[in-house]
Amino acid sequence: MKFAIAGSGAMGSRFGFMLHQAGNDVILIDKWDAHIQEIRQNGLTVNYNGTEKVVKIPIYRPNEVKGKVDVIFMFTKAMFLGEMLEDIQPIIKEDTQVVCLLNGIGHETVMKKYVSLENILIGVTIWTAGLIGPGKIDLEGTGSTEIQNFVPGGEEKAKEIVKVLEEAGLNGVYSENVKFSIWRKACVNGALNATCSLLDATLGEMFETDQAISITEKIVKEFVDVAAKQDVQLDFNDTVEYIVKSAKELGHHYPSMHQDLVQHHRLTEIDYINGAVARLAVEYGIEAPTNELITKFIHAKEQLLKVK
Amino acid sequence: MKFAIAGSGAMGSRFGFMLHQAGNDVILIDKWDAHIQEIRQNGLTVNYNGTEKVVKIPIYRPNEVKGKVDVIFMFTKAMFLGEMLEDIQPIIKEDTQVVCLLNGIGHETVMKKYVSLENILIGVTIWTAGLIGPGKIDLEGTGSTEIQNFVPGGEEKAKEIVKVLEEAGLNGVYSENVKFSIWRKACVNGALNATCSLLDATLGEMFETDQAISITEKIVKEFVDVAAKQDVQLDFNDTVEYIVKSAKELGHHYPSMHQDLVQHHRLTEIDYINGAVARLAVEYGIEAPTNELITKFIHAKEQLLKVK
Repeated sequence: MKFAIAGSGAMGSRFGFMLHQAGNDVILIDKWDAHIQEIRQNGLTVNYNGTEKVVKIPIYRPNEVKGKVDVIFMFTKAMFLGEMLEDIQPIIKEDTQVVCLLNGIGHETVMKKYVSLENILIGVTIWTAGLIGPGKIDLEGTGSTEIQNFVPGGEEKAKEIVKVLEEAGLNGVYSENVKFSIWRKACVNGALNATCSLLDATLGEMFETDQAISITEKIVKEFVDVAAKQDVQLDFNDTVEYIVKSAKELGHHYPSMHQDLVQHHRLTEIDYINGAVARLAVEYGIEAPTNELITKFIHAKEQLLKVK
Repeated sequence: MKFAIAGSGAMGSRFGFMLHQAGNDVILIDKWDAHIQEIRQNGLTVNYNGTEKVVKIPIYRPNEVKGKVDVIFMFTKAMFLGEMLEDIQPIIKEDTQVVCLLNGIGHETVMKKYVSLENILIGVTIWTAGLIGPGKIDLEGTGSTEIQNFVPGGEEKAKEIVKVLEEAGLNGVYSENVKFSIWRKACVNGALNATCSLLDATLGEMFETDQAISITEKIVKEFVDVAAKQDVQLDFNDTVEYIVKSAKELGHHYPSMHQDLVQHHRLTEIDYINGAVARLAVEYGIEAPTNELITKFIHAKEQLLKVK
């Protein structure tokens, strides 16, 4: 099987690297010039659990790709998904499986415009990855990757992909209810990312304040209500507990939105996390004032920081 | 008449200075040691519309005051009102008029514990004042001061106070509906103070973002609903317009809460502004999720910044 990674930032590069190490035919796709140049000239430099490795993996700009690819892993930022799918149309063939592993909610709507339903897989990964600079990534810890067909019928092909992920050490799992995992991850991000960004706090610092739990509860309640409208049963208490546990485990970290917004003045994925809940709430005729306000604050902050 | 200023920060010092300049017998009351020492040794130094003036006005700690005072202007931070009234009990006599000019909502509850109803005046001032350092204030621009008896019956005495304010250039007005003015000012502060503090923005910067108006509307809507329960008719559109106009006029300023919280790491008055609306909404069985969340965020930020 031939694999493509569409969006080869930190996490995309992790998947590309680990698939390549396991002997698969992989190409990377990205738009960042300095990153492309570094990988083409000197290879992808990976600090892999403390050991430096340099690997030569082909990397292309989206508009340069051609030929046949069996599986494409989508790893763009949420707001660039459509643009990427548009650009890589030449390699999305009749039987190319496209696996959406983006953060956030509701990417199916975009995927459906470019990929036939039976070739769409949705998923969620809890691996982490750090980008040190162009062509250089830092990989530590462990994780797993759940995927599922968006519509029933393609389980056989999906399980082949799971097997490859398994062999590459990416701990693939074929899920029977991946929407639950996607919503739960989005809810964790929804509770932690924007709040730590607005408060300019690490996860640990935030959870030392007396307000952290009650802010978390307000956010989670609205996620639970909206998820239920999509037939996803998030349990309120379990989710709050899971978030508090996650925040404590990663206490000294700033969440990724803080890195994007506060540290690097980059556009955030807020519209696909809290903003998605606020938008869906309107569609379903229910209230989500907390996620709505948080989304507005993050967008205001983006403008104030003149993000790119 | 003898006047006391209970809480002689920037605004209290403005009132003390202007009353003193008009020939009134005035004492200042404050707790800040460096401020007291400077004023006792070198007088109160006032940059009054560009001209430096130094005046000798007696200043006392709250627990040092004694004797008879006819009128006390309360100018503490909202959270210190009760403590100040407790401390200055010796000068609150049977006919001492106590004028509450604090920012925010609901100070009557505290005032009533220490002052008999017929001696309470509530009011609002739109003068500004800046504190340069201990014993040094900066007074520019113009303003006015509305006061009204808390319960009917004391209008005659109140109008004498208005006359003194008038003669001192403080533009006193006896109001027939001071609660409206208090609520409107609180709503302006509620829309601007916390948001600019959370976003770390000047008023002008905030109103350059696409979200400013819609965030303002969410906040104002809840103020309007809660005020209505207190028989105060704030008009939604007028109030939003008034806030936008105020923000534009003071575009390059950070609101006072930003100065307190972000610049000086001091406790804010949030519980008497957005927090009061959230609390009253619960009492009245209505919803105020926007003001509730904003209050929680500001309290979280206070803790993160280890305010004093």
